[in-house]
Parts: sequence; C-alpha cells; structure tokens
Amino acid sequence: MGGGIIIKASIKDIAKKANVSVSTVSRVLNNSKYVSEELKERVLAIVKETGFKPNLVAKGLVNKKTNLIGILIPRISNNFFAKLIEGTEEVAQTYGYNILLSTSYNDLQREIEYLNIFEDRQLDGILFSVTEFTEEHRAFFERTTLPTVFIGQKLEQQEKYPYVTIDNVKASYEATKYLINQNHTKIAILAGPESDTATGTYRLQGYKDALEEVGITANPLWQSMRFHTIEDGYIATSKIMSQVDKPTAIFACSDQQALGAINYLHEYGYRVPEDISVMGFDDVDLASIFRPKLTTVKQNPVDIGATAMRLLIDQMKNIEIQSKENFIPYRLVVRESTKKL
Amino acid sequence: MGGGIIIKASIKDIAKKANVSVSTVSRVLNNSKYVSEELKERVLAIVKETGFKPNLVAKGLVNKKTNLIGILIPRISNNFFAKLIEGTEEVAQTYGYNILLSTSYNDLQREIEYLNIFEDRQLDGILFSVTEFTEEHRAFFERTTLPTVFIGQKLEQQEKYPYVTIDNVKASYEATKYLINQNHTKIAILAGPESDTATGTYRLQGYKDALEEVGITANPLWQSMRFHTIEDGYIATSKIMSQVDKPTAIFACSDQQALGAINYLHEYGYRVPEDISVMGFDDVDLASIFRPKLTTVKQNPVDIGATAMRLLIDQMKNIEIQSKENFIPYRLVVRESTKKL
Repeated sequence: MGGGIIIKASIKDIAKKANVSVSTVSRVLNNSKYVSEELKERVLAIVKETGFKPNLVAKGLVNKKTNLIGILIPRISNNFFAKLIEGTEEVAQTYGYNILLSTSYNDLQREIEYLNIFEDRQLDGILFSVTEFTEEHRAFFERTTLPTVFIGQKLEQQEKYPYVTIDNVKASYEATKYLINQNHTKIAILAGPESDTATGTYRLQGYKDALEEVGITANPLWQSMRFHTIEDGYIATSKIMSQVDKPTAIFACSDQQALGAINYLHEYGYRVPEDISVMGFDDVDLASIFRPKLTTVKQNPVDIGATAMRLLIDQMKNIEIQSKENFIPYRLVVRESTKKL
Repeated sequence: MGGGIIIKASIKDIAKKANVSVSTVSRVLNNSKYVSEELKERVLAIVKETGFKPNLVAKGLVNKKTNLIGILIPRISNNFFAKLIEGTEEVAQTYGYNILLSTSYNDLQREIEYLNIFEDRQLDGILFSVTEFTEEHRAFFERTTLPTVFIGQKLEQQEKYPYVTIDNVKASYEATKYLINQNHTKIAILAGPESDTATGTYRLQGYKDALEEVGITANPLWQSMRFHTIEDGYIATSKIMSQVDKPTAIFACSDQQALGAINYLHEYGYRVPEDISVMGFDDVDLASIFRPKLTTVKQNPVDIGATAMRLLIDQMKNIEIQSKENFIPYRLVVRESTKKL
C-alpha cells in the first residue's frame, strides 16, 4: 500500500534496458519499419515491464491528429441530447476517438467561443447541434478546415457540410394533421425559441401548413416560442389557457413542454385527453410511462448521433459523403394523451 | 462568399510583418517576459489581422498542460449524471478547462480502459463516478500522478484522493425510517447492482440498519439489486409483487426504478399510495410532475458536480484539500407516493 515513489520510464530507459537504440524502440512502438520479431518481442516485454506510456500528446503533434471529436449541443440534461451523445460515443469508441463535450445553453456567443476552442485545440472533427446559423457561424465554417457534421436540423445556409436530422417540417405537418383528423380545429402550438431553426421555425411551419391546407389560419395567440423545459411548457400553457377562447388540442414541439402542459392542465382541473388533447415530440423514456401516456412523434436520437459520428469519420478519412442531407426516420406514436372530438 | 484560399499565418509570418524576432512574438503571445507596451500592441495588432492561432497542442507539450479534464460516469442518459455534468462544466468553463466525457455503462473493464486513455492523453485531472473499487482500480490510482476526485460515493479503499457524495448510508436509513414511522413494516428495496458501492452496498446497508433498529430482519425476497433504469424497476417490482407475501411499501434507490415500480403497479391494478407506498431517490425533474408526485430523497447533482470540479482544480493548483470526505446535503421530500398505514 505504502507510498512508493512512482518512476516513469522514458523511451531512453527502455532502449538502454533492451540494449537497442532509441530509434529502434520508437520503430517498435510506432510499428513503422521492419523490426525482427525477436527484437519486437524483447522491446515490448520491457515496455510492459516498465509501464512506459508513449506520449500521445507529442504523437498527436507529429501525426496532426488528436483523436478528439468536439460535440457542441444546447443542453445535456435534455434526455434527447443525452441519448444522442450515447449514440455518438458508441461509434467513437469503436474507432478510437474520444469526445470533448460542450454545451451552449442556446447561447450563440458561447457556441462561437466553443467552436474557436475546438479549432485551437486542433480537434479532428466537430458534431454540432446548431441553434441558429448566424453570420458569425457562417464566417467560422467558411474559414475552418475541421470536418464537421451538423445535427438536429436542415442547414441550407451552408454548402460545405452534411447534416443529420429528421424532416422537421414534414413531421410537424403530420402531427398536426393527425389532430385535425381527430376533428380538432382549435390547435395551439408550443414551439421552440425563435432562434431555434429546427423546433422554432420548421416545426412551426409544418403546423401552419397543415392548418392552412384545411383552410384554418393559425391563431397567433395560441402560439408560444419557448425553451424545451417542463417549466417553459407549463408557463406557455398557462398563458394560452388564460384566454377566453381556448384550444381543444395542444401540440408541444418537445415531450418536455408537453409534460409541462399536462402538469398545468391537471393542476387547473382540466382532464387530458377528455377536456384537451396534448401531443408531444421526441418520445423520451418517460413518454410511455407518464399518465396519460403521451401521444408523440418518436425520434431516434441514438441513431441520429451514431449516423452523424459515422459521417464525420468518413469525412475525416476523406471518404466522399453521398448526400449532404441525411434524414433519419421518425413516426407518430398514438397513446393516451389525445382524443377524437 | 466565394471560396477564397485560407491562409494560415505562422509565427514566422507575424515576426516578419512586425519586423521583430520570432522569440519576441512568442514572448508577447505567452506574456512571459518583459516586452514594451508599444511592441506588444504592434505584435498583437498583426496577430489579430492575420487571424493567427497559437498551436495549443504544441503549447500543451511545453506547458505539460492539456487543460482537459476527463469525466468518467456510468450513463449520461440518467438525468442525475446529466445534471452533474452541467455542474462540472460551469466551473470548468470559468477556469478555462474543457471536458473529455466518457461513459462506462457500469462496465468495470471499460472504466479501466478509459482511465488509461485519460493517462495516455495526459489530461490535467479526472472526475470519476466509480462503480466498484477493484484491485485494478487500486493499482491504477496508486500508480497514476493525475489529480483525481471521486464522485457519488465514499471511498475508504483509497487514501490519496478526495470524494464528493452524499452520506448514502444515512440518507437511506432516514428514508426507510420515514416509512417505518408511517407504520410500514413490510418494506421492499430496489437497490442498485451489487457492484455499485453507493446504491448497491451503502443504501442497502442504511435500509437494513433502520429495519434492525426496530427489530425487523430484512426479507431477502423483498430485495432486488438492479440497474437504475425504468425497465429494471419494473422487472424488480414484478418479481417482488408476484410473491404470496407482499410488501406495503417499496423503497427504490433511484427515481428511475421508482417510476418503473409505479408503472408496474398501475398496470397490475394497484393504487399508489392507497395500496402500496413507493419512495424514490434523487428527485429528478420529473419526480414532482409525475402522478402521483414522488416522495423521494432530494440530491443536488449540479452542486455535487460543481464541488467536485472545484476540488479538482484546487488539487491541480497544489492547494491543500481540507478534507478527503466531502458530503453534500440531501433532504427527504414528502409528496404523494407514500401514505401512512
């Protein structure tokens, strides 16, 4: 147990012990030139014995590789992103990459800061769940040489990099269409914040498209644009439900907001779905055990994360990317929180 | 917009442009020796103009600093750990550190692998939510020179490093005691896996202590030791409730397992808490909006993460750590899922 002094062997010590030159040890460790099997075994035995570790940092400097992937997401405590990270990590581990994790909390300035850190650290690539693609983002991605894959939304504003997402306009259109087919015409929406293209712009668009198709103009008083937290869903619903004219259905663009909505509705004596239907989005773990079980749009974040990481690794290996646009399947899961009028 | 060629300025280019030596530029960038204000400004203006970025990887090699902290946790999709990461990241960002995230899925071999990667990468420190402290762990931590803080459990098996946790034995004792005070004597426990010291050993211990104090011997048929997922809680409860002699209360050592338990109970026609009380542990976001609202032991994972990161940074700066043992407060939150008999 006692505190013995830890001796770190250097490559010189190993060379001396094996009675070979430093460059021979280096060749063995890098597997780079012909070395006889006998010599290789002898050197490796001593390496093992001494517990010598090659300096990966120095090695990275020579290779120009850090084997680090930077991942930039809005919030890790959102179950969708946590699962997405799990998907990326499984693939990364297989290929010997590690993950540098950064969260932006939807703060655009913080996003830019982290991107610059990724570049300064000379990471091998970036996975980026971008919130809003600003001029600063554009400038960064036009300048940088780091392979990148965008996740979570379609990015028409840039030509260079692929993105992995679901078709948010279409998915939102179909969710709203489902409510319309259940005879709802007074449908509120809890969208994402205005700056969030995927859930603030595209999902709002799909909702409006479905309503317009049947001749309904979306009521701006029934639209909220807030973050995807339980609390924000609660507040949004309180504002919508305090109006004289109330909707019969609420389409929340995340399960988090849907849970907040249901929480508000229960607290104020509304029954879900008897008095009001609530539709979610994502299908987080809890959607199926919450009471009532959530009707929602099922995304597969593990698959999105894994696909994005695979595309990034292809890029890093200079394998040509088949298509910039990579849509992952989704599907509507009908459970108990919505009801036909 | 068009694809202009990106020219990366080197330190030589800057020296030439500023008409100074390379070492002067280097001194300015590293703020390391006296340079006149005039010269400093001139060099920095050119640095800015050229968009030059100092090579952080090479710099790290000289400094022997990577400014990277390795975090090793069992599972990021568990809300407790996601929040813990948020706590660590806030502190890390303030001090200019980034996070290398790794998840073990409670696989001990994978833990050892990641620890070795942390060492190979010469990270500046480790935050480790250890599952079980095996001989291999001991060997690693006796050998390594990396500053480390353990999170989530008391670690008496090692002398070297501090740990940040709640007092798991005491918290579990108090939770069980609460159920006993509500006149429950037939209390089941959904503990963590055997290999998990915090939730498998210590929380089981606290539960047994409370029962023994009132002369009850814990019934081994009412003990389960599984992972902290909704599914595992469901399965554990199905096994316990299929016995002839049934408990009147279930103490789940995580909210995840408690939610799984309630899900099973609802499915099989039991009312919670009228027919059976369920106590959770953690107080995840959903505990207060789930129906029934969960009675649970509230931990503060953001605080645990932030405290651990601060302790790690102190260690890295060679500031003496006050105490190896760092307990974070917790408290019992009584809501609707438990009832007096």
